[in-house]
Amino acid sequence: MNFLNEVAQRFPAAISFAAGRPHEANFDVALIHEYLDTYCRHLAETERRSEEEVRRTLFQYGRTKGIVHELVARNLEADEDIAVDPEAIVVTVGCQEAMVLILRALRRDERDVLLAVSPTYVGITGAARLVDMPVLPVRSGDGGVDLADLAAVVRRARSEGLRPRAFYVVPDFSNPAGETLPIEQRHRLLRLAEESDLLLLEDNPYGLFRARGGRLPTLKALDRSRRVVYLGSFAKTGLPGARVGYAVADQLVDGGTGGAPTLFADELSKIKSMLTVNTSPVAQAVIGGKLITYDYSLLRANEREIATYARNLRQVLNGLARRFPGPRDGQAPQVTWNSPAGGFFVVVTVPFRVTDQLLAQSAQEYGVIWTPMHHFYDGAGGEHQLRLSCSLLESGPLDEGLDRLAAFIRDRV
Amino acid sequence: MNFLNEVAQRFPAAISFAAGRPHEANFDVALIHEYLDTYCRHLAETERRSEEEVRRTLFQYGRTKGIVHELVARNLEADEDIAVDPEAIVVTVGCQEAMVLILRALRRDERDVLLAVSPTYVGITGAARLVDMPVLPVRSGDGGVDLADLAAVVRRARSEGLRPRAFYVVPDFSNPAGETLPIEQRHRLLRLAEESDLLLLEDNPYGLFRARGGRLPTLKALDRSRRVVYLGSFAKTGLPGARVGYAVADQLVDGGTGGAPTLFADELSKIKSMLTVNTSPVAQAVIGGKLITYDYSLLRANEREIATYARNLRQVLNGLARRFPGPRDGQAPQVTWNSPAGGFFVVVTVPFRVTDQLLAQSAQEYGVIWTPMHHFYDGAGGEHQLRLSCSLLESGPLDEGLDRLAAFIRDRV
Repeated sequence: MNFLNEVAQRFPAAISFAAGRPHEANFDVALIHEYLDTYCRHLAETERRSEEEVRRTLFQYGRTKGIVHELVARNLEADEDIAVDPEAIVVTVGCQEAMVLILRALRRDERDVLLAVSPTYVGITGAARLVDMPVLPVRSGDGGVDLADLAAVVRRARSEGLRPRAFYVVPDFSNPAGETLPIEQRHRLLRLAEESDLLLLEDNPYGLFRARGGRLPTLKALDRSRRVVYLGSFAKTGLPGARVGYAVADQLVDGGTGGAPTLFADELSKIKSMLTVNTSPVAQAVIGGKLITYDYSLLRANEREIATYARNLRQVLNGLARRFPGPRDGQAPQVTWNSPAGGFFVVVTVPFRVTDQLLAQSAQEYGVIWTPMHHFYDGAGGEHQLRLSCSLLESGPLDEGLDRLAAFIRDRV
Repeated sequence: MNFLNEVAQRFPAAISFAAGRPHEANFDVALIHEYLDTYCRHLAETERRSEEEVRRTLFQYGRTKGIVHELVARNLEADEDIAVDPEAIVVTVGCQEAMVLILRALRRDERDVLLAVSPTYVGITGAARLVDMPVLPVRSGDGGVDLADLAAVVRRARSEGLRPRAFYVVPDFSNPAGETLPIEQRHRLLRLAEESDLLLLEDNPYGLFRARGGRLPTLKALDRSRRVVYLGSFAKTGLPGARVGYAVADQLVDGGTGGAPTLFADELSKIKSMLTVNTSPVAQAVIGGKLITYDYSLLRANEREIATYARNLRQVLNGLARRFPGPRDGQAPQVTWNSPAGGFFVVVTVPFRVTDQLLAQSAQEYGVIWTPMHHFYDGAGGEHQLRLSCSLLESGPLDEGLDRLAAFIRDRV
């Protein structure tokens, strides 16, 4: 995505629907101090650690799997109805490190492959590239995943001697497509994973940000047979600058020593000890303090953000509808978009080819930036689509940005 | 090293010469708050950033190569006489991530190999294992490196169709051996690297901690042809719990787009974007604040620590000499040790086999823990040696620990 950053840097005055960064209205440096203090008080008063132990916890190298694992487990219980042994949690340097750890653990040789819906999040394809693991595309379908195609891709891969190790999926408000997997599809996906002996990597960075309808249970909450490795991020719900994420990896795996099976989390921990040793305890303490402050509920901590993202998403969807009211006399509309139930992203389909060249033109001549969807495909796909992110903008610039986008599109249809 | 951690956990009352962790006497949670504030003031007053920009710098995702690169460059100038373009610095999640980034960048296929003195730091062998890069051992010699063997290993590897991509070396107070490369050897190593077209990975976590004699210039300070990638760590000199390290990678490499050559640092940055995205800005701010507080000199910031480590090293060396005064009538001594000029580690040679089993016995029966040296060898080596770390202990326990160690050894000779 270097080209995109470059465009953003060359045209700093352009209004950007490109970055999927969290809203900044509630950033306040004082919060970092407060969260740190809250975490230290928690160690001293609730955990009964001595002053020396508190200092050591923050300053020294620490436990490879992390120091806020118990707090994360309480958060999962509070917000997601996921009950998990804290020992099965590995706290990581953002969710990105968790992806790398998992794929590195799953990759034994060149026959191991990952499956993912196309289009997919660039973070997972990047992680797969780092560990030399091919990603086989699965067609998107009802709510995001074409389950028949998933089954077919698994069969085909196996017949070719490949080992499909896992299927990566974002069931809630996916990036880039903004899709949400319906509840029946979640159950079906779990059954299919069971029948196909496939691990599911569930990534859930946006799940709290539902804009309409009720929240659905995560795959992990429905998981009865440890089929799901759950990927969590505090980048959108905690504090992005802490760079703290985690994996829940409660699968039992062969420990390799002929002894009892061990937790997959412990295998990830061994890899982490060679990758980053441990996640900054200072950064973990900031996240821990935020979790404690809100009684372990990030739903509660993010009440304002959830409202902001819902409002922005509505504003984008209504704004598009107002600016592209559709054709008269029954013709098919030339410009369409999907209607996500939450999250950060909307996909707009246009009747012309969406290239990087056009993005540069849009930035320079119209003062508006977005993301060409073809970047989220490995190979063909998304050529007539662009992604709008609604997370960062305030209401005024968002409206102005839609005006500019509409002008850019209208000049091309 | 899981076995070692396990022994330490099973015998918490044992005095430990095992962990290479920094001294804890000056840990103080208030410092974290102070450093954060100092960094924010620096952004506002020196860098003239608005309040909003300061908040965004700490909270938001940030520059992949880091936000304290200019401060790190000033530190290198102040303490190491290394002049470097800040753009050539990649701030990483501890030095461990820097190692992984570099080896991943250097590894194209199974012919690429790394060279390292045996015994060597387990962090580099771990990083190499993660990216499937074999490590060819080089014999240790005068001050740590047998240069003739290094040249021979390079020749032999090339004749076998392998590509020696780099030589990993800790010129100052190496871990585990405590060796220091003399100045003539540094010049010779640089010439050899030039003649053999070999990159040098210079790792310098202990360089500030000289206990006697004058400091020597780093390889990077002597490097006139961008032969040296420099690895820096703030784990011992900054704040371990920040998990911040860095690489100086000012080599010019093919950018891959047929255009102008780019900095090796930018190649590392691309890999980092797939590994951890960026290093926690909060953690970087803590380190940045410490650098600013001490006018960019970690030598100044660590005056007390430097004195503590020097005192501990002397106490260990003198304590060993007192407890093992050497045999009478010209016999060879049964117990010997090296005499490092600084750093954390001393290597003791004993006339019996030093096994993990013996370590467990030493912990249980004698109440003292150390590290069997064979762990730092890939294959044979170090069977009669153990490593003592002098960094963590206070003076009283250190003396008591030496008594216990002496009893353990005497019962076996």
